[in-house]
Amino acid sequence: MPSAVRPDRRAPDAIRRIRFRKHFAPGAAGSVLVEAGKTRVICAISVEEAAPRWMREQKVSGGWLTAEYSMLPYSTEDRKPRDIAKGRLDGRSQEIQRLIGRSLRAVVDLEKLGARTLWVDCDVLQADGGTRTAAITGACVALDLAVRKLRKAKLLAENPIQERIAAVSVGIVGGHALLDLCYAEDKEASVDMNVVMTASGRFIEVQGAGEEATFSQEELMAMLALARKGLADLFAAQRAALDGRA
Amino acid sequence: MPSAVRPDRRAPDAIRRIRFRKHFAPGAAGSVLVEAGKTRVICAISVEEAAPRWMREQKVSGGWLTAEYSMLPYSTEDRKPRDIAKGRLDGRSQEIQRLIGRSLRAVVDLEKLGARTLWVDCDVLQADGGTRTAAITGACVALDLAVRKLRKAKLLAENPIQERIAAVSVGIVGGHALLDLCYAEDKEASVDMNVVMTASGRFIEVQGAGEEATFSQEELMAMLALARKGLADLFAAQRAALDGRA
Amino acid sequence: MPSAVRPDRRAPDAIRRIRFRKHFAPGAAGSVLVEAGKTRVICAISVEEAAPRWMREQKVSGGWLTAEYSMLPYSTEDRKPRDIAKGRLDGRSQEIQRLIGRSLRAVVDLEKLGARTLWVDCDVLQADGGTRTAAITGACVALDLAVRKLRKAKLLAENPIQERIAAVSVGIVGGHALLDLCYAEDKEASVDMNVVMTASGRFIEVQGAGEEATFSQEELMAMLALARKGLADLFAAQRAALDGRA
Amino acid sequence: MPSAVRPDRRAPDAIRRIRFRKHFAPGAAGSVLVEAGKTRVICAISVEEAAPRWMREQKVSGGWLTAEYSMLPYSTEDRKPRDIAKGRLDGRSQEIQRLIGRSLRAVVDLEKLGARTLWVDCDVLQADGGTRTAAITGACVALDLAVRKLRKAKLLAENPIQERIAAVSVGIVGGHALLDLCYAEDKEASVDMNVVMTASGRFIEVQGAGEEATFSQEELMAMLALARKGLADLFAAQRAALDGRA
Amino acid sequence: MPSAVRPDRRAPDAIRRIRFRKHFAPGAAGSVLVEAGKTRVICAISVEEAAPRWMREQKVSGGWLTAEYSMLPYSTEDRKPRDIAKGRLDGRSQEIQRLIGRSLRAVVDLEKLGARTLWVDCDVLQADGGTRTAAITGACVALDLAVRKLRKAKLLAENPIQERIAAVSVGIVGGHALLDLCYAEDKEASVDMNVVMTASGRFIEVQGAGEEATFSQEELMAMLALARKGLADLFAAQRAALDGRA
Amino acid sequence: MPSAVRPDRRAPDAIRRIRFRKHFAPGAAGSVLVEAGKTRVICAISVEEAAPRWMREQKVSGGWLTAEYSMLPYSTEDRKPRDIAKGRLDGRSQEIQRLIGRSLRAVVDLEKLGARTLWVDCDVLQADGGTRTAAITGACVALDLAVRKLRKAKLLAENPIQERIAAVSVGIVGGHALLDLCYAEDKEASVDMNVVMTASGRFIEVQGAGEEATFSQEELMAMLALARKGLADLFAAQRAALDGRA
Repeated sequence: MPSAVRPDRRAPDAIRRIRFRKHFAPGAAGSVLVEAGKTRVICAISVEEAAPRWMREQKVSGGWLTAEYSMLPYSTEDRKPRDIAKGRLDGRSQEIQRLIGRSLRAVVDLEKLGARTLWVDCDVLQADGGTRTAAITGACVALDLAVRKLRKAKLLAENPIQERIAAVSVGIVGGHALLDLCYAEDKEASVDMNVVMTASGRFIEVQGAGEEATFSQEELMAMLALARKGLADLFAAQRAALDGRA
Repeated sequence: MPSAVRPDRRAPDAIRRIRFRKHFAPGAAGSVLVEAGKTRVICAISVEEAAPRWMREQKVSGGWLTAEYSMLPYSTEDRKPRDIAKGRLDGRSQEIQRLIGRSLRAVVDLEKLGARTLWVDCDVLQADGGTRTAAITGACVALDLAVRKLRKAKLLAENPIQERIAAVSVGIVGGHALLDLCYAEDKEASVDMNVVMTASGRFIEVQGAGEEATFSQEELMAMLALARKGLADLFAAQRAALDGRA
Repeated sequence: MPSAVRPDRRAPDAIRRIRFRKHFAPGAAGSVLVEAGKTRVICAISVEEAAPRWMREQKVSGGWLTAEYSMLPYSTEDRKPRDIAKGRLDGRSQEIQRLIGRSLRAVVDLEKLGARTLWVDCDVLQADGGTRTAAITGACVALDLAVRKLRKAKLLAENPIQERIAAVSVGIVGGHALLDLCYAEDKEASVDMNVVMTASGRFIEVQGAGEEATFSQEELMAMLALARKGLADLFAAQRAALDGRA
Repeated sequence: MPSAVRPDRRAPDAIRRIRFRKHFAPGAAGSVLVEAGKTRVICAISVEEAAPRWMREQKVSGGWLTAEYSMLPYSTEDRKPRDIAKGRLDGRSQEIQRLIGRSLRAVVDLEKLGARTLWVDCDVLQADGGTRTAAITGACVALDLAVRKLRKAKLLAENPIQERIAAVSVGIVGGHALLDLCYAEDKEASVDMNVVMTASGRFIEVQGAGEEATFSQEELMAMLALARKGLADLFAAQRAALDGRA
Repeated sequence: MPSAVRPDRRAPDAIRRIRFRKHFAPGAAGSVLVEAGKTRVICAISVEEAAPRWMREQKVSGGWLTAEYSMLPYSTEDRKPRDIAKGRLDGRSQEIQRLIGRSLRAVVDLEKLGARTLWVDCDVLQADGGTRTAAITGACVALDLAVRKLRKAKLLAENPIQERIAAVSVGIVGGHALLDLCYAEDKEASVDMNVVMTASGRFIEVQGAGEEATFSQEELMAMLALARKGLADLFAAQRAALDGRA
Repeated sequence: MPSAVRPDRRAPDAIRRIRFRKHFAPGAAGSVLVEAGKTRVICAISVEEAAPRWMREQKVSGGWLTAEYSMLPYSTEDRKPRDIAKGRLDGRSQEIQRLIGRSLRAVVDLEKLGARTLWVDCDVLQADGGTRTAAITGACVALDLAVRKLRKAKLLAENPIQERIAAVSVGIVGGHALLDLCYAEDKEASVDMNVVMTASGRFIEVQGAGEEATFSQEELMAMLALARKGLADLFAAQRAALDGRA
């Protein structure tokens, strides 16, 4: 079966154009508007000068990093009601924000943060698939900016970030493995996988799920290979944004 | 008492620099990022092709326009917890979103909207005073853009917007009436007033409140005059943004 | 256009009959049932011998005054479900209770209260328009009674009330400015304004709003003049209730 | 052990002075302020011209009667926070309102109500023990007034009330059975019992509970006898209020 | 009127077969699965090594015991939605858990518990009438097991349980008093009564309620006598379970 | 580094003893108590004879299957408060119940279900690691039992289950890959992976996550191989339970 043409004519192993608009929310300690194709996510880091209550109560030293993820109501074609209008955080958002927090904590030395809480807020301005992976890739940039600011202000003695992380989606659409799915592709995918990786090539999270479908070991391997290629491109884009003009 | 120097050295009767970044949230029917000094608010219009349930139940013809206002957590120096984290919409936000909706409905012919609901979402990206007035001034621009789009798509036969609106704050600080207060001034103000007006110079809302203080009829008159001057500047900025390059 | 006859044949500049039934809720520190025409509101002051938590945490000295407003379910022709049945305080109630609290704090010396919280509860027993203004006018009487009781018990060295306040509504109905609108008039009004004033004639709040309509500077002036007349009558009624037989 | 003197010098088998102020909430279909000693409860009936949704869905004919009970914040010495402030109806209130509804439904022919919902609201204005029994005794009077009004308006062909009901508390205090406990007695009681009865002397509810204590069959019998005596007095008071001057 | 045959052919004064499966939830301090006919309830005691906050704040010495009751969704023929799905604890559950807690506290010396909280959780696995009485009877067994464990671990110097308790339902069905109603009988009952008693024959709670019906003093007496007989059988079953092989 | 001894002396590639107690909740359409070592989960299927509202509104044919997961308060050493006590479903539970539902839907032909909703409830009675995988493995058995019952009752013409599924956890503990982690191992694991698979060996979900750690491609491969071995054992146990004595 020949591979179908993708909506934006990308090659199956090409990521979407990625851009980082730094300092997008000037009130935050670090922030970025990350754009992956039409997907746009505001990533912002706020610093609270206290560890969370549970750490203080359990006398755990160091700091904490926690994430919140939300879709702005106008990010989707049909307006998405705010969580507060329904009175509860929806399950998908909760799952995503737990993933973002866990992924960043895998590369942050919480001890070096000191008794601080870093809040990572990811608000989706426009949703065209891959919002959770864009959020992770962007949050890593925002975190880098925030840490630079804290170090410049002599609030942090050492850099708590051990290495950078990025994330990308892959999927099986019409029998073909595709990299970095847009929404139209995501809807058609029988398998959807998100891979979070460190710049040194180690996995942080691998989440593959059949959408009322299943997948073989071979398909899993093909998706992991594609993801690895896309992640290399994303790390290069992060480096350009953060180190290029530094 | 001589007038004190303002933080940004503006004249007492000068508004802050106002900018409208149009089509900021491309998924919305109309959108703008409005910037008034350091205050930044995303204003976006979503269109739902049905009147609200209460109108259908009460067999009221025409459409409806409703607004929601929220501060993004990183819009303030100390991170503002999301409403959903506290489980309730805070009173101030609720008051503001009621004001925004009421103000726009005063100049929109709901009959001409047809059986539609226009959702006006205002999310504060950065807060430096005057977020509610910036939201109203920006929402009017976003609404204009949305209506143009609906008319172009032949979804609306007539323009339901009867005239434009804008809003500005005025206050008494250290005994002096000042126009368009920034946050540092707002904190010091003994009286705070918000004025919503139509382009033809008629009032929609006048809300003046002493902050643990009171004010005289003369002070009220002085504030109204200042507001009228600022509103003229805001209407000019709206015209430049919407009609200048049309 | 000749002025229409009002439902209760009042002159355009006449307030409704106002009555204060003192000590209506004997368990409270001070209480009154205020009746303005058919509108009836229970106003009661409770004293908590501690400042609110935020004042203690921020080490602010003095006390606080806060208000809650609610409509009893049987106060309206169609039964109004309780807030708890819907799980949220409705926006209008929240707006009103913030107004009541803010208005009273404008004339109360919080420092002189000591480390106390005064709770002002306003429960509407019957609603026929003007419940928020009746609540403010009545709450001022209840507060006076509560302070007298506290001073008699030697709990307060000085009177923290700097002067009395009252509130009244005015509106434009059928092109005419009318004072103290009843519900039937309020429904027909194109503009609705609430004015809160001190006994010495200074404004605390001026809230004028077009109901899907707008108003001119001249109409604003006419409404302010009417309000001032009505407020003079309300202050006289308060004096009669509080000082007449003291 | 000789019987102790009661706080208000009543005989052990005497009820408190009971008064019914009829038409207390003129907006309701029927209402009363019932006073039993210092305990005061507003009882009001609202009529909704539709059966509840579950009856319509299950195609049950006739109507329904449901009750809500709440303590106004200023009804107790220490201000009682509103349910909405805590976000949940407290367990005790829920238990009481279920009791009130169940008790009245025992004597109302729901078929004769037609497709209507009667809402019985009981709001405690002052609490000095026995608020639930006063609420039941008062609600029966308010219901009678509401039915009279509905019948006068030809909305009800037949009287759906089969007979009147009343309720009273009894308890064991210091080893002695006492009738109609006030709050000071209630706090000291080892056993607390509420009895709801029909005017013809049949039980609707008998709820006896040891307060971290137990009771014998003999004590149960003594309490039932006392309750029966008090209920006779309450039925006489209801008759005087409703039939005496009718 | 001759007595009708019961669904399970029991005599009118016979309880259902009662079984206690001890240590059913091995993670708990004490637990039992109690089975009364087809009704099955998990009763489990958890120990928290601190008194509740209100006791610490009010400096009350000793410990506390509190109960929670819930029906598992698959305990009823039509699946019962979880409380969290509706966002609120239903009124009936709340009433029952208050009853369970109150009943156990009547025979527990809270002083001897020390600064501890005992949580009594009752989860209904299958509901066929009498779940609240089975919960009480079973919770007493679970509590006994938990106290034995605490005493063995030298955490309790003295046995805080003063005596055992049990509970049973009785009702009037088709004019006949029946003991220990199953669901089919409960639905048909005109009167439903729950009796909680101590092993020494004293009442803790007597709750009799007409279901849109009333009952006479004679019927009350007959139901109390039946309950007393059933409770003797339940206490024997508890002794067999707890002391038989001790 | 030699492999450490496991708490229960299992080989690194051995699963815990698995048992299925069928028909554990007799009120459900199908149910099982699954025990994997000390972990015990009640899995029960309830049938609702209607498709969910969203399917009816969107006119989607066929049925639906949805899962709910909850930990009973006494399933953990420190009592876990119920969701309703905190007013919100916790994020972890929500994530798990979404996983259970998605996994089962991957092998259920929703079209063949007819206009029905299958509710899969998983309540953890004792938690010793691997509750989500035990829930999936057990829910598959309960679903099989429920479908048999529906087919016997002629409610289903065809078997909607395409094949069986099971799930197992694997992890990296002290540098070694281990199968089916108990709680003590899970706490020490640097990587935790859950694998859901069909009986024919295809993946449904692969969720690997570093716990503040990362993992290599080789470690991923080793974990997948271990999982595959454990799943073969689980499928054999399911066959024995369901087909052995059929």
